[in-house]
Parts: sequence; C-alpha cells; structure tokens
Amino acid sequence: MPIINGIDVLDVRFPTSRELDGSDAMNPDPDYSAAYVVLHADEGPDGYGFAFTIGRGNDVQAAAIRSLEPHVVGKRVPETAAELAALSAELVGDSQFRWLGPEKGVAHMAVGAMVNAAWDLAARRADKPVWRFLADMTPEEVVGLIDFRYLTDALTPDEAYEILERCREGKQQRIESLLANGYRAYTTSPGWLGYSDDKLVRLSKQAVADGFDMIKLKVGGSLEDDIRRLRLARAAVGDDIRIAVDANQRWDVSTAVEWMRALSPFGPYWIEEPTSPDDILGHQAIARQIAPIKVASGEHVQNRVVFKQMLQAEAISVLQIDAARVGGVNENVAILLLAAKFGVPVCPHAGGVGLCELVRHLSMFDFVSVTGSQANRAIEWVDHLHEHFTDPAVVRAGYYVAPTKPGFSARMHDATLRRYQFPEGPEWTGDNA
Amino acid sequence: MPIINGIDVLDVRFPTSRELDGSDAMNPDPDYSAAYVVLHADEGPDGYGFAFTIGRGNDVQAAAIRSLEPHVVGKRVPETAAELAALSAELVGDSQFRWLGPEKGVAHMAVGAMVNAAWDLAARRADKPVWRFLADMTPEEVVGLIDFRYLTDALTPDEAYEILERCREGKQQRIESLLANGYRAYTTSPGWLGYSDDKLVRLSKQAVADGFDMIKLKVGGSLEDDIRRLRLARAAVGDDIRIAVDANQRWDVSTAVEWMRALSPFGPYWIEEPTSPDDILGHQAIARQIAPIKVASGEHVQNRVVFKQMLQAEAISVLQIDAARVGGVNENVAILLLAAKFGVPVCPHAGGVGLCELVRHLSMFDFVSVTGSQANRAIEWVDHLHEHFTDPAVVRAGYYVAPTKPGFSARMHDATLRRYQFPEGPEWTGDNA
Repeated sequence: MPIINGIDVLDVRFPTSRELDGSDAMNPDPDYSAAYVVLHADEGPDGYGFAFTIGRGNDVQAAAIRSLEPHVVGKRVPETAAELAALSAELVGDSQFRWLGPEKGVAHMAVGAMVNAAWDLAARRADKPVWRFLADMTPEEVVGLIDFRYLTDALTPDEAYEILERCREGKQQRIESLLANGYRAYTTSPGWLGYSDDKLVRLSKQAVADGFDMIKLKVGGSLEDDIRRLRLARAAVGDDIRIAVDANQRWDVSTAVEWMRALSPFGPYWIEEPTSPDDILGHQAIARQIAPIKVASGEHVQNRVVFKQMLQAEAISVLQIDAARVGGVNENVAILLLAAKFGVPVCPHAGGVGLCELVRHLSMFDFVSVTGSQANRAIEWVDHLHEHFTDPAVVRAGYYVAPTKPGFSARMHDATLRRYQFPEGPEWTGDNA
Repeated sequence: MPIINGIDVLDVRFPTSRELDGSDAMNPDPDYSAAYVVLHADEGPDGYGFAFTIGRGNDVQAAAIRSLEPHVVGKRVPETAAELAALSAELVGDSQFRWLGPEKGVAHMAVGAMVNAAWDLAARRADKPVWRFLADMTPEEVVGLIDFRYLTDALTPDEAYEILERCREGKQQRIESLLANGYRAYTTSPGWLGYSDDKLVRLSKQAVADGFDMIKLKVGGSLEDDIRRLRLARAAVGDDIRIAVDANQRWDVSTAVEWMRALSPFGPYWIEEPTSPDDILGHQAIARQIAPIKVASGEHVQNRVVFKQMLQAEAISVLQIDAARVGGVNENVAILLLAAKFGVPVCPHAGGVGLCELVRHLSMFDFVSVTGSQANRAIEWVDHLHEHFTDPAVVRAGYYVAPTKPGFSARMHDATLRRYQFPEGPEWTGDNA
C-alpha cells in the first residue's frame, strides 16, 4: 500500500511584469506565480499541483498549502474515485481551517492545489492523462466525486447521474476526435492592456493567420483607448472573427452597461468580468441590459455556490472555470455538471502560469463525458511560460492538442524551480552565474 | 510627524475546544484564536488589531497580516478620516495581493486586522473610543471613508451623505443615552451545541434573570434534539423572551425550510446562517418560505458586495456585521449605511474572542450617526475570554456599557499574549511552571 511520505511547497515567481505580459485594468504589473506543491510517494511517481497567484502573497498561499500537510502525509496514495472523493472531503471539511473561507480565497485555493496534486498523482499511477482518467470513470464514480452540499436546489445527485448517463453514447468517438483534432482554443495574447497599438494589430493578424477564430482584448482603462483599440482589432481580423473583451472587474453596473454600449458597434462577443466576481445580481443586471452581447465570468468565482447562483440568475451565458481557483478537480466536476444542467457553455480561463496545462483536461472531460459538445466552446490560450512545464500545452492551428502523458500536466522542470524560486532563485537575486 | 516604525504579529490561541464553548453544527471543536497585530509608533501609543479564527490556520492568517508590513511600516501614523481612508484604499488596492481574494477570506481578513489596528491607533491618539471618534466625524468625512466600488447600484455617495445628514439631529442626546443606558445585548452563552440539556435550561433561566430579553441556541445537529432543546428553552424563558436559532451554514435550502417549519411551534425569532453564507439566492428562497421567521446572516459574509446583494434580494431581514471578517472599520461603515438604506436592522455577530469588544463601537456609531434607532437591534454577547482584554466588554442587566477608554478595545494583556501564544506559550506546551 503506497503512502504519501512527505510534501514540498515552493514559492515560484516569474517576472512577467517586466514585459507587461498579463497587464489589465485591475492588474497593471502581475508577476505570474505558483505556490507549488509536490506530494512524495514512497513508491512510484510523485504528484504535482499549484495555486496560481500574481506575485505578492504567493508566500502566504504557500504557507496555506503547507498547513494542510497533516491531511496527506502518512496517508495512503489515492488511486480510486472514492479515495479522491474522501481526500477532497477531508480537506474541505477541516472545520477549523474552513473558518478562513469558508471555501474561498487563500484557504480554498490551498485545498485546490492539494486536491489537484492528488489527482495528478492518481492519474500518473493509472498511467493516464487526467481527462482520460476521468472519462474512464462510471457515472456513479463521477457523481461520487462531488460535494452536493449547497447545490441540491439547483442540481441533485440523480440529475447529475442522468446528465452523465445520457452522455455515454458516442464517448469513444469523441475521445478519438479529441486525439485526432484537439479542442478549440481562443487567444488572449494580442490584447494585454500594456501593449502598443502596433503590437495589438500585429498580434491580432498573427492570431488569425495562426488559425484562431476568436481573440480577446483587455478593456476598462480608458473608454477612448478601448474604442480605438477595438476598432483597430476589428479592422485587423475582419468581421468573421469573434472578439471578446475583458474588463477584469473594473466597473460598477451602470459603467459596465454604458461602456459596453459604446463598444457595441465593433461587435464584441462577450464581456468578461465586467464587475465584482461576487456580484451575481450585478452580472444579472448587466446581462439583461447589454444583450445580445454575452456576459462571461469565472476566473475569480470562489466556489460552486457562486457559480450555481450565476446560473440560476441567468447572470452569465459563458462560464469560465479556473483549474486552480476552486477546490480542485472535484469541485470543477461539480461546476461542469451545473453548467450542463443550465445549458451554459464552459470556456475555461487560462491566463496565468500552468492554467492552460491543467484546464484542457477539464474541457476535454466535459466534451467526452458531460456535454458531448464543443459548440460555442473554446479554451483560452496565452502563449507564454509553457516552456517551464514537462508536459506543456500545445496549440496547433487554433486547437489544443489532447495531452497523452500521464497526470494533470502540472509538473515544472527542476531547472525552472531552481531559477524562479522566490526570493532566493537567481532570477530574483540577479545572480545568473 | 509620528511614524509607524514596526509591527508585531502573534498567533494567539485559546483552548476553548476543551469545554465545547463555541461548539455548533459546523464547528464541533473550535479553539478561539486571534492573529494579532501591533502597530508600533515612534511616539505615543501603539495600535492593536486582530483577525479572529478558530484554530488551525491561524498561523496562515498571521502570515497574511505580516505580508502587509510594507504598506504600513515607515509610513505616517494615520490621524484623520482622510488618512484612514487612504490607508484602507492602499491595503485593499494592492493589485498583486488582491488576487488572493479578491476582498475575501484570509487576504481580506488580513486587511481588516491592519485597518482596525490603524483605527485603534488613530482613536488612541485622539483620546477617544472608536465609536466617539467616528461619531465626531462630519458626514463628508464618513462618506470619504468608503470605497463605493461595486456599491453604486445600491448606494451612492450622495445617498450615504443624506442618510448621515438626516441623522445629525439628536446626536448629542443619543450619545448621552448610550453613556447612561448602554446598548441592548442578547446572549448566546446558553445555547452551544455541546452543552447538556440541564446546562441549557440553567443558563437560559440565568439569562432572563440577568436581564436579557433574547437568547440564541445553536441548531442543525439533529432535528429531534433541536425540537427537544427549543421546547426546553421556551419553557425555561417563557413566551416574552425572543429565542433566535443558529444553524451555522449546516443546511441546503429545502432542509432549512423543513427544519424551520418543524421548529416554528416554539416561536424562533430568527434563523441565522441557514445555509452557505455565499448563497444569496438560497437565503432569499428560505426567507420567502419561512416568513414571518426572520433570516439573519453576516459573520461569514466576505465583503460589502455580498451584503449589498443580500439586501437587494431581501434575503436577510437581520444583518450581522462582524468586526474582523471584512476589511475593517471602513468597510463596516459602508455596510452600516447599506443596511440603513434598505431599512434592515444590524445585530452584530460577536461569538469569538474580542469580537464583543470591537463590535460594540460599530453598533453605537450606527445608533448615534447612521440610524438613530435601537429598535429590533441587539449586539450578541458571549461571556467568555473577556478577561484577556485591557478594555473588556461589559454587559449589565442585558445592556452593553458604552466604552469610554481611547481606542478600539482590541488590546490583549501582555500576560495573555505570553501564555496563549501558539505553539510556544505555556498553555500549549503544558509547561505551567
């Protein structure tokens, strides 16, 4: 019986603020960072996970992950759906630690990092990528992964089971289709707020040439700038390419409505995070007033309870899961099933470090086992920092290639961990000898 | 110009789980704890603040507070409303740190602890208790304390100003009334879930004898037990005493409705935290189905955005602010004004360590400057751990005595800090020599 006999938690930071990659209206100078955890097994492979942050506070996030050590060290390596469910329940259910959320923020992201590392470990032992590992589970096993507390007014275990059961037909063909064709991507790389107009136009044209049918631009700094930038982007890509815009929580309700009406001549496809991610009723009010422009949110939605309400209130028509914000794979499976129940497409957030790597597994599972559809769905693609991962995300001609290596793709190269560890790595000390 | 020239952050824990004080349906064995911060000034008094937790994770909370050090050390001691507003805005607005919330959980509670310590410091320098310090501000100054981002669809600065301006009349009489008579308290001390029936009955009778007109019982463990306990409590206190019940987030929507209908013959006044504190629409559904029983929430409501929606949705008819959950005094002033706008009475949460000490200042400010009313309002009173504070909360004949010492009453005795520091204090090492 293999045992987890130790963990390492590392504070890893990339100096992305130097180039303004990742800059937006609320986050002018992010240093993309990971509070990174390794679960050491006494035999077989280790497991890897992380919480994504943007710099300061990554040490606090790492401390939170470290504090969960007693829940995993000395315990059996999880291998089955039931064991992964039990571990997730134990981590979420620690009543003293739960007080720090509950189920939100630093404490919940710590649980998510640990749960994801456990999934990585279990999938490696099963010699499958996580999306296949999930796809091979029975509907009963998948339903058993989920904590239905606070969900049953919107989704019961029986309803979840029926969704999964309905989707069994054609599963093998969809797996083959993913392996052959991949999964639609859209790209955010042209649109960071800190980029010049020239760079925006050049990268927008490049995106179309590279096979993308949708790009995303950051907005919310200045309306005048946004009008100019959106006009330039529309001219660069033509009318057949979708342009989403993303305000990163910059506005109040009335500002969001006015701003989006001013941008509407350029045909924005969705507005992402128009206001506080906590503001379900605010998103609802905005959605009603700017239709048919869609409202999207999720990268900062703290847990399944807020997603549930976003769906109940028809506040979003695009749901953006994040692999490392909520309580890991188990909670994301719940969120995928909620979205399926309400008929809202999932287009994951992946602007960060390692998020492209992880979230492709979840969308591919959604396609194979939950919805059976890729219609109006695409996974965000941001083309940087992939070189640090041992199983990097790859996009070809606008499609994510299906990962085939075992695990959840969260592992970073040892050289990366040495170089970017904060504050002692040579990238931060300036000692490049 | 006085400067903050250093901070100390301590992990202080009280072993309350040994006696089951504080036990409820979700928190069976809390160790009431404080991540405690001291702001050292280079001249004059120091300032004190804390985040309240229930044990494990208090070290993570302390680390989060410590990480805010660069925002305060070397800076001027805040003295005016404008300086306190600027400090709060700087702490909330750190874009990298904000990612860890935003404005929720560990990161936001750290901001709250720091903001409250700054208020303590400023009020000590002004030689006033915080409630008087606040009451002496002009409406313009009070409005200037508030971050209106995400609020303006429910409360504008002009509306806030009008509420405060309307309440200026009679202010001096209300201050005198507080000094003479205090502010209504209700007591939770009889109702912890771990207490025996005998203890429940004895403490309920004692509460009435002590002058309380309302008590609160924890519920949500077993319906059969709750029916028996509520019947016993009702028999003990008679029909003229209000009995509130508190489920501490235990239920889903349908369970909450069924459970409360089963308890309704015993006349519960409010049900507190029937479900997830994040579930605005869930609270709304419960409130509609169990009226006229009131729904109360707030101790785990993460910020003003969720309170705003709770009010917009008529999801709660009692709003329970917590002095140490949100971003400190500034955000609580915003929440008091929101509650006033919607006509919902504020009955603060104070079950914890130090919360009675702090929150009385906020209710008294609400009475003097915001609503001018104590109707259907009372501050929770839990009679333990007060001996650790240098300016302890005092309740006489069912009323909180108005504090008169300068500051926010957050300071603990040095002997307490030494004894209960975790894990090295003698209370935890067992070394009582």
